[in-house]
Amino acid sequence: MTRIWSEPFEAEQWNRFELRIEGPQDGNPYKEVVLSAEFQFGHRIIKVDGFYDGEGQYVIRFMPDYIGSWSFITSSSTAQLDGLQGTLICTAPTSADNHGPVKVDQIYHFSYADGTPFYPVGTTAYAWNHQGEKLEQQTLRSLSKAPFNKIRMCVFPKHYDYNAAEPEQFAFAGSLQQGFNWEAFNPDFWRRLETQLDQLQLLGIEADLILFHPYDRWGFSRMAAESDDYYLRYALARLASFRNIWWSLANEYDLLFEKKMTDWDRFFRIIQEHDPYQHLRSIHNWHNPEIHYRSNLHWYDHGKPWVTHASIQHADLNFVTEWRELYRKPIVIDECRYEGNLNHGWGNLTAERMAQCFWEGMAQGGYVTHGETYLHPEGIIWWSHGGELHGSSAEPIAFLRSIMEQGPRLDTSRINFKWDASAGGVEGEYYLIYFGASRPAFRDLTLPEGAKFRIDLIDTWAMSISPLDGEFAGACKVPLPGIPYQALRISKI
Amino acid sequence: MTRIWSEPFEAEQWNRFELRIEGPQDGNPYKEVVLSAEFQFGHRIIKVDGFYDGEGQYVIRFMPDYIGSWSFITSSSTAQLDGLQGTLICTAPTSADNHGPVKVDQIYHFSYADGTPFYPVGTTAYAWNHQGEKLEQQTLRSLSKAPFNKIRMCVFPKHYDYNAAEPEQFAFAGSLQQGFNWEAFNPDFWRRLETQLDQLQLLGIEADLILFHPYDRWGFSRMAAESDDYYLRYALARLASFRNIWWSLANEYDLLFEKKMTDWDRFFRIIQEHDPYQHLRSIHNWHNPEIHYRSNLHWYDHGKPWVTHASIQHADLNFVTEWRELYRKPIVIDECRYEGNLNHGWGNLTAERMAQCFWEGMAQGGYVTHGETYLHPEGIIWWSHGGELHGSSAEPIAFLRSIMEQGPRLDTSRINFKWDASAGGVEGEYYLIYFGASRPAFRDLTLPEGAKFRIDLIDTWAMSISPLDGEFAGACKVPLPGIPYQALRISKI
Repeated sequence: MTRIWSEPFEAEQWNRFELRIEGPQDGNPYKEVVLSAEFQFGHRIIKVDGFYDGEGQYVIRFMPDYIGSWSFITSSSTAQLDGLQGTLICTAPTSADNHGPVKVDQIYHFSYADGTPFYPVGTTAYAWNHQGEKLEQQTLRSLSKAPFNKIRMCVFPKHYDYNAAEPEQFAFAGSLQQGFNWEAFNPDFWRRLETQLDQLQLLGIEADLILFHPYDRWGFSRMAAESDDYYLRYALARLASFRNIWWSLANEYDLLFEKKMTDWDRFFRIIQEHDPYQHLRSIHNWHNPEIHYRSNLHWYDHGKPWVTHASIQHADLNFVTEWRELYRKPIVIDECRYEGNLNHGWGNLTAERMAQCFWEGMAQGGYVTHGETYLHPEGIIWWSHGGELHGSSAEPIAFLRSIMEQGPRLDTSRINFKWDASAGGVEGEYYLIYFGASRPAFRDLTLPEGAKFRIDLIDTWAMSISPLDGEFAGACKVPLPGIPYQALRISKI
Repeated sequence: MTRIWSEPFEAEQWNRFELRIEGPQDGNPYKEVVLSAEFQFGHRIIKVDGFYDGEGQYVIRFMPDYIGSWSFITSSSTAQLDGLQGTLICTAPTSADNHGPVKVDQIYHFSYADGTPFYPVGTTAYAWNHQGEKLEQQTLRSLSKAPFNKIRMCVFPKHYDYNAAEPEQFAFAGSLQQGFNWEAFNPDFWRRLETQLDQLQLLGIEADLILFHPYDRWGFSRMAAESDDYYLRYALARLASFRNIWWSLANEYDLLFEKKMTDWDRFFRIIQEHDPYQHLRSIHNWHNPEIHYRSNLHWYDHGKPWVTHASIQHADLNFVTEWRELYRKPIVIDECRYEGNLNHGWGNLTAERMAQCFWEGMAQGGYVTHGETYLHPEGIIWWSHGGELHGSSAEPIAFLRSIMEQGPRLDTSRINFKWDASAGGVEGEYYLIYFGASRPAFRDLTLPEGAKFRIDLIDTWAMSISPLDGEFAGACKVPLPGIPYQALRISKI
């Protein structure tokens, strides 16, 4: 017997369509009931996994990517859930903010699905979503005023210095005291996470969701392989339909000492096979300070085909060009130390240096992620808890973001001078040259022949843009103020 | 027939003894007359080469290293100069400033021959000795007030931006207009250079004398191999007896494109064979900004046995520890960019950064060299011409020198935190931890068990030393002011 919903459903393109069906509650439905659906548009079929949401509720979610009429049919090991058919009318986005999910574009860059360029300007608040309602709301208010359009955050809670509080809920059923049931999830936790993801989406923020990390007192970092995979499949079924999700396999994967490289390969393949939308996938390394200044020893190979972009922890942004050439993928420096005054060495950059990291990375055609680690009387530190931003780099980062969004995608440029400048551009058209803490009094440039250029002097710290007098062509001498944190923006007239 | 000086000569230990003899002027005495002498002390014989000083004057120089009575006898292809015998009484130094030449000591460090530690605090004025009397005197006055005890300087003049003036004299006979005689020298030039070396010695400054370099319009960088060797032998015969000389085979050897690695090997061996005193020998690389952030690609192998210490150009002092472990020799960063505001990328560091380079290198048990490149209305720039110092790093460098001279020789220490600190010390006894531009609000230290320590907080930029209250032992929390450029000096009580 085939059950058919007579009325078609509706969903906007790239929004989440959710089908909620009653089903059996006996046994362990998470494990025992297999559910999926096929959504068909013309000859194109997308298979999505369903999941059990507790209390006899089974859910199928789908993010339609084409406008028009889709048909669907469920499959299940349980007759009650099997063979259910319906129609989904996918309509055009009604919100100007709905550009679809972010994809790799032009090899080294990102765009939304509708073609709008996306310049990731990330921040880091690993466990903001485990802090309880009050602090979480404060974090969202802070994010609404900040320039960040990507946030790194963890499914599992964080155990570390300044992170001793016990969260209320966990991805798995159970607690630290009572133990966890590695075969059952806690739907309340997941629904709360989903609300948080939607709140981020309303703010235009991509969730760089970290699936595993080593800072753990609960056992989530050392589950058996079948639990890892079981968890991944559940997360994929619940979350893949969120258009603002990116899969970050790990924060500091190489500190998860019980996992092998083949485990990470398997996780990537599971995600690749079960995410119908092929959201961005990456993995983030630890940064061993003993080998701090070499470029990429001991990393997961970002060249593997299932890695969509390199998510790198490294304190030296000068490697961005090398990594671009090595991986030929977008380079996102997801950790380059944080602005703050923390006792830990990775957490006491000046604001000037944090902003400098952004400029150095981005002028080379890479992307950089912010974090903040100021000591706080109640131990609420943005890097992990969210809360309020206390630093001074967010404003110059916002200024940089506006400059990036005004210009073209940057490639590393040979026009300039790695001695004291990070430079990128579009050959013959546009150059951005950033001098960092160096402070030349002038610079001799050799601009491409046959064109005239105008040049803006940008004080990246004072956040001012001053057009230089005249037009520039060929070999020319460009005056500079001889103070740190200056940049030149050179545009073909 | 043997001629004997009946009266013994006298010279202080490590001073220069000079024997001046009349001889033939016909032909090309530089080339045609071979002259040497053997100085004997007990069973020990030191052979030194003589040289022709023009106008029929032949000279033998010797730096005695043992107190007592030395005999000597000359050998020559010319009968007139052959078999001359005499006695040299070597007396104890009368000047407290005469500690002898500098040697490698304790693998990674330097001492004078009398055992006094020498901590190189170098500066760079490549062509100060080619600028004419007035500017040269100004340079010497500047040096007399500066903290530097080593200077990098070239035998050959410099052709480069800001270096267009024609010198008065050259090592070889001739001029740019008339051409050079590659078989004859200009003794006036050499005597002037020797006066300069003696003036430096009076100021307690070691002359890191650069024998070849690429910045050339005269042809000195592309002489035939026999001219290279001929010049080296002449320089060795004249200058080896100067106790403050170090042989730097090149500034940026790898920009001398016509020379091969085997040429540099040969030069090292010539110096090794013909310098009776085995002064320090090194070779200095260019720093290709394209491969800027890798550690030592394309370098001359400082591990070769004739290299006494590594003379490195590199902008990243964090490699010092790696180079120490690689070469097991003293590491001298003889160029890490210069304080100034020059258009060139290697010449526009802030003074803070120049001082930071010194601290980063020295806290790891390496040594660092200063340079200064401020634009100047008459184009007189310390880095090349000498003159006056206009920067602000010399004073904090002097402060660092005093701290180094108060403490023991440093080895890279594992006590700390490459993330944000360069740290060195003597295990269990003494530690110097430098935080650079990072600014932790406190630091947890684990000091060795069984001992108590006192800790000084050093503001390396404000040049203040503040003892912290109390004694420290074992695991302890050390308060810090949360501002850049702080260091801790930890001394066993």
